[in-house]
Amino acid sequence: MRAETAPNPRKRGRPRKDPSLPDGTRERLLRAGLAVLTEKGFSAVGIEEILSAAGVPKGSFYHYFESKEAFGLALIDAYAAYFAAKLDRWFFDESLAPLERLKAFAADAEAGMAKFGFRRGCLVGNLGQEMGSLPESFRARIAGVFTDWEARTAACLRAAQAAGEIAPEGDAERLARHFWIGWEGAVLRAKLDQSSAALEIFMEGFMALLERK
Amino acid sequence: MRAETAPNPRKRGRPRKDPSLPDGTRERLLRAGLAVLTEKGFSAVGIEEILSAAGVPKGSFYHYFESKEAFGLALIDAYAAYFAAKLDRWFFDESLAPLERLKAFAADAEAGMAKFGFRRGCLVGNLGQEMGSLPESFRARIAGVFTDWEARTAACLRAAQAAGEIAPEGDAERLARHFWIGWEGAVLRAKLDQSSAALEIFMEGFMALLERK
Repeated sequence: MRAETAPNPRKRGRPRKDPSLPDGTRERLLRAGLAVLTEKGFSAVGIEEILSAAGVPKGSFYHYFESKEAFGLALIDAYAAYFAAKLDRWFFDESLAPLERLKAFAADAEAGMAKFGFRRGCLVGNLGQEMGSLPESFRARIAGVFTDWEARTAACLRAAQAAGEIAPEGDAERLARHFWIGWEGAVLRAKLDQSSAALEIFMEGFMALLERK
Repeated sequence: MRAETAPNPRKRGRPRKDPSLPDGTRERLLRAGLAVLTEKGFSAVGIEEILSAAGVPKGSFYHYFESKEAFGLALIDAYAAYFAAKLDRWFFDESLAPLERLKAFAADAEAGMAKFGFRRGCLVGNLGQEMGSLPESFRARIAGVFTDWEARTAACLRAAQAAGEIAPEGDAERLARHFWIGWEGAVLRAKLDQSSAALEIFMEGFMALLERK
């Protein structure tokens, strides 16, 4: 998002009731923000583009968010919650063997990227790459999201160890960190190349690495 | 870089001589651009910041570059040339075994990131991540740089195969693509975490993958 001098009309405490605002305006802003910011960078996008995509007037934005920084932090939280639920859906799917759950997550992510013509990537990866231009408050929040995803992934890898799919002596936490380091790189390349090849190449290598352990 | 209405005072053909411009102004602009844009995104940075870092007046910028898009493309070319020379220096270092060359490149990159407090990453990775906001002309240029790096890396991996360091049946091109997908992810995380841990975790896994092949 470009630097803007943000008015700050919001009072402390609960937002005041405003009958001109339909219910769900905050959610509409977050949804539009997620759609725009998985595609473009925070620095490149103005609040006007979010408002226009959400069909919400500017005054309403500052009714719900004190600043573009506060909006960005709320977007990270919303994306983290959405993504944690997605990971759990795949990683706790007892109908699949643990490694198949990881592959199913990757295939689902690939289909999701293809659906949007490989224009949309990962909000948290995008923001992480942009960190040099973002408010410092974003850093710990973004890193915390990766730590959370890594923990969920490590649990799935430990289940694969318990099921005898991969050797039990591998360090599941370290492998999960490796996964997220490389997966974010693969999402970046898939966007650049407008192709799923990078996702497939990374997963093939990661699976070979797991099977080695 | 923010959208700007760029004047275009440059004439076709060779830049006219301007005695007020010291020699090397174009190089100074490119050097300043590389320093700023390995740290921040293209969308987040205005030309003014480059000019100020280079100590060059605005008129001179448009003397050398038709537009910010032309400047961005020249930056990609300059970074590609700089980086290709760096890769060759490491990958053709006959005093080291081929896999040691790859490790030495990674250790050198890690030291380079540490030197700048993990604020500077990879220009091409940064721009790739930002592609959704960049002129479409950047896409093929950035992808071409990765293809070049992958070819140089594959040659090093084939040397490792010839030297018997890794099994000869592995697909060196595919492994080189895997390397650059994951390495760019690792550079992103190293910047976010302000730590070399991601670089080390990715290299450890990649080496384990190579030794498996």
